[in-house]
Amino acid sequence: MKIRFYNTKILTAETDCSITEGELCTCDDSIYYVGKERNIKEKYDREINCHGNLLMPGFKNAHTHSGMTFLRSYADDLPLHDWLFNCVFPREDKLTPDDIYVLTQLAVLEYLTSGITSCFDMYFFADSIAAAAKDIGFRMVLCGSVSGQASNVTRLQDEYSKFNNYDELISYQLGFHAEYTADIELMKEIAKLSQSLKAPVYTHNSETEKEVKECIERYGRTPTALFEDLGMLEYGGGGFHCVYLNDNDMDIFKRRNLWAVTNPGSNTKLASGIAPICTMQEKGINLAIGTDGPASNNCLDMFREMFLVTGLQKLLNKDAAACGADSVLKMAVSGGALAVGLKECDCLKEGKKADIVMIDLNRPNMQPLNNISKNIVYSGSKENVKMTMINGKILYENGEFLTGIKPDEIYYKANKIAERIR
Amino acid sequence: MKIRFYNTKILTAETDCSITEGELCTCDDSIYYVGKERNIKEKYDREINCHGNLLMPGFKNAHTHSGMTFLRSYADDLPLHDWLFNCVFPREDKLTPDDIYVLTQLAVLEYLTSGITSCFDMYFFADSIAAAAKDIGFRMVLCGSVSGQASNVTRLQDEYSKFNNYDELISYQLGFHAEYTADIELMKEIAKLSQSLKAPVYTHNSETEKEVKECIERYGRTPTALFEDLGMLEYGGGGFHCVYLNDNDMDIFKRRNLWAVTNPGSNTKLASGIAPICTMQEKGINLAIGTDGPASNNCLDMFREMFLVTGLQKLLNKDAAACGADSVLKMAVSGGALAVGLKECDCLKEGKKADIVMIDLNRPNMQPLNNISKNIVYSGSKENVKMTMINGKILYENGEFLTGIKPDEIYYKANKIAERIR
Repeated sequence: MKIRFYNTKILTAETDCSITEGELCTCDDSIYYVGKERNIKEKYDREINCHGNLLMPGFKNAHTHSGMTFLRSYADDLPLHDWLFNCVFPREDKLTPDDIYVLTQLAVLEYLTSGITSCFDMYFFADSIAAAAKDIGFRMVLCGSVSGQASNVTRLQDEYSKFNNYDELISYQLGFHAEYTADIELMKEIAKLSQSLKAPVYTHNSETEKEVKECIERYGRTPTALFEDLGMLEYGGGGFHCVYLNDNDMDIFKRRNLWAVTNPGSNTKLASGIAPICTMQEKGINLAIGTDGPASNNCLDMFREMFLVTGLQKLLNKDAAACGADSVLKMAVSGGALAVGLKECDCLKEGKKADIVMIDLNRPNMQPLNNISKNIVYSGSKENVKMTMINGKILYENGEFLTGIKPDEIYYKANKIAERIR
Repeated sequence: MKIRFYNTKILTAETDCSITEGELCTCDDSIYYVGKERNIKEKYDREINCHGNLLMPGFKNAHTHSGMTFLRSYADDLPLHDWLFNCVFPREDKLTPDDIYVLTQLAVLEYLTSGITSCFDMYFFADSIAAAAKDIGFRMVLCGSVSGQASNVTRLQDEYSKFNNYDELISYQLGFHAEYTADIELMKEIAKLSQSLKAPVYTHNSETEKEVKECIERYGRTPTALFEDLGMLEYGGGGFHCVYLNDNDMDIFKRRNLWAVTNPGSNTKLASGIAPICTMQEKGINLAIGTDGPASNNCLDMFREMFLVTGLQKLLNKDAAACGADSVLKMAVSGGALAVGLKECDCLKEGKKADIVMIDLNRPNMQPLNNISKNIVYSGSKENVKMTMINGKILYENGEFLTGIKPDEIYYKANKIAERIR
C-alpha cells in the first residue's frame, strides 16, 4: 500500500519545529520519502492533495488509563486520594475484561480525533487492552500496572514477555501503579526484574504533596530517592505527574536519564498542583506529555494539554515568555515517543513508522499563518485534525472513523457498562 | 422561515442545567416552541432530526477584541504591558477600516465553530465591526473603546446613538479602554454620559497587579473605587478580567450589580494571574466569560475558557470541588447574555431569540452520557459544535460555514493584512 501526500506543508520534528513544503510518501507501515515535490512517474494506491495543510508526526500520549472512560463525568470534583480510594477503586472492582476491551476502544476513538497516534496505557486486563488496540489498528505501549504484594511481579514478568512478542503495534514496559499502593518487597522485586531484563521502569511519582509526605514518613525519603536506592532506575524509565519533585529528585531524573511525563489537565482538575516544568527544562530533564485517564481529566485531547503545559508555567513563573510553544510541541511529539521506547515514531523521516497527522490550517483558528507551531500550541483544537494515520493506515479522516469498528456500537456498549457499574 | 428540531435533548438554561427530551421550533428570528415532541400537522421549511444530540443556548463571549486576529501567534510570550505598548499599539496604528472588517469576520468564523452566538467586542473602527457582523449574520454588542482625552466622549455618545439604531443584530454599550489609558476628565465625562443615558459602563478592570498599583499611585484608590467615586457605576456595567479585585472592590461589584467578566485563557497566556472566581461566587457577584482577543489568548474557544474557569479555581483554592461545571456553563450562556444586555438571548424559551447551538453527543469525548453538562465543561471541544444558529438562521453546520462569505477569501485577505503590518 503506497500513499503519496502532495501540496503539503511538513513539520518533521526531526530537530526543531521548522516547516517546509513538499511531499511525503508512505509504503505499508513506513515513510519512504519526505522532501520537495518530485516529478517522477510512480504508482500509488492513493494520492492525497493536502491543499497546503500540514503533515506532522502524531502526538504521543505518554500517560493514560484508557479504560477509565466509564467514569468520565461521573466521579468529578473530588481530591485525588478521596477520588481514587472511595470512588474509583470500588467501581473498578466490578469491571470485566470485556468491559475493558470496549472502554479502551472508546478512548482510542478519542485519541484519533486528537491526532494521538500512540499512548502509554497503564490499566488492568492487559489482554483486553492489547486486543482493543490491535483490532482497531492503534499503536499501544502497555505499562505494567501491578501493585500490592511481591508475588505480583510474576504477572509483570509474564506480561513483559507476552506483549513484547504480540503484534507490531503493541509493546510493553515495566511499571507499577505507585509507591503508595506497592509493598516494599514488590518494589525490590521490580528492581531485580528491571536489572535482569535491562529494562526501564515507569510509575506514578510525586503527583500530590500527600503522596510525597507519606512516602517520607514511611521510608525517610521521597519516592524518587526511594526508587533509586532500591536500584530500580539503572536502566532509566520515568515518572508520571512529577508535580512535587525536589532538587535532589530532579538531579536523579537527570542523572538516570528518566522521563518526566506531565499531566497538566489532570493535575488541574484534581487540584493537585502545577509541575515545575521550567525548572526541569533548565536542568535538561527529558519531558513528555500525557492526558492521564478520562476520569480525572476528563478529555483525551493533546491540544488542551499542550496549552496547559505552557500556560500553567507562565502563571507559575509569572512570566509570559515561559515554556515556549516549540518546546511544548516537541514534548508532545518526539518526547512522548522516546519516553516510551517508540524510537521509530519520533519524527517524519525516511524509514520511520508512518504515524502521521494532517493538521487543517484552513480553519479560522489557524489563520493567519503568522507562526504555525504557535498556532497549533496556542490555538489548535481537535477541529484541526483532518487525518490520523497509524502504521501507514488512515484510521480517521474528515471526522470519520475508518477503523472498521462502528462508533455507535462502542458508545452503546460503554453506556451499558457505565449504567451497570454506577 | 420555520424550522423544527426533533429527536433532541434540550438544555434550556432557564433555571439550572437540567436536560429534557423533545422538540424545539423556531419561526424567523425567535423560538416559538420548546417541549415534548408533538404529534401535530404543521408545515416547516426544514425539519432536522437531531439524533439525540443536544440543543442549548449559544455561548456568549462577554469580552473580546475580534479584530486582533492579525496578531495571532505573532506577538506572543510577552507580559501584558510590554505586549500592549511595544508590540500591539504600534501595529494597530497601521490598521485601516477595511482591515478591521476582514479581521473581524475571521474572528466571527471562529466564534461560529465554537458555538458562540454573540460577542461583546471592544475595538476601534466601530463602523467596520458592525458591518462585518451584520453582513455575516452575527449578533454583536459593541463596547465603547475610547481612551485619551475628554473630547473623545463625543465619539462614544455618537456611536451609542448610531449603533443602537443600526440593525437588529447590533447593539452598543458605553465603555472605555481602561483607567490607565484614559484621562481623568474623560472618565468624568463618561460618568456624566452614563447618568444622562441611564446606561451601564464597561471597561478593563484590575487585569494586572501593575495596573492596580499604578492606579492607586495616581488616584489613591483602586480602579473600581475610582469608577464608583466618579459616579460611573450608577446604572451598572462591568469589568473585564477582574484578576486583582480586593474585598472593597468586590463589595462595589455586588452593590452596583456589576458583571465581572473573566478571561482565563488570556490571563494565563499573559501570566497576569488567576481571578478570584470562587470568592466572587460566594459574594453573589454576577459572572460571565470572555475569550479576550486572539492576540492574547490565542484562540476564540469557549470550551477551553470554560475548562480554565473551573480548572484554575480548583488549583487556586486547592480544592477539586471548586467552581462546579454547572455554574461555569451558566456563566458562559445566560451570564454572558445578561452581562451585555441581551435579555432575549439568555435561554431557550418561547419568545426568546433563536440563538442556538447543537452539541454533537455522538463523539467519543461526550461518551458515556454520565452527565452531559459536565461532559461539555470538562471534555467538550469545538469538534462537538454540530450547528450554530443565530437569530433563527443556521450559519454553521457539520463543519461548513453557511454565511454566504467564503472562508478562503477571508483567510487570504487576513494573511495579506498580517504580512503588510508585520
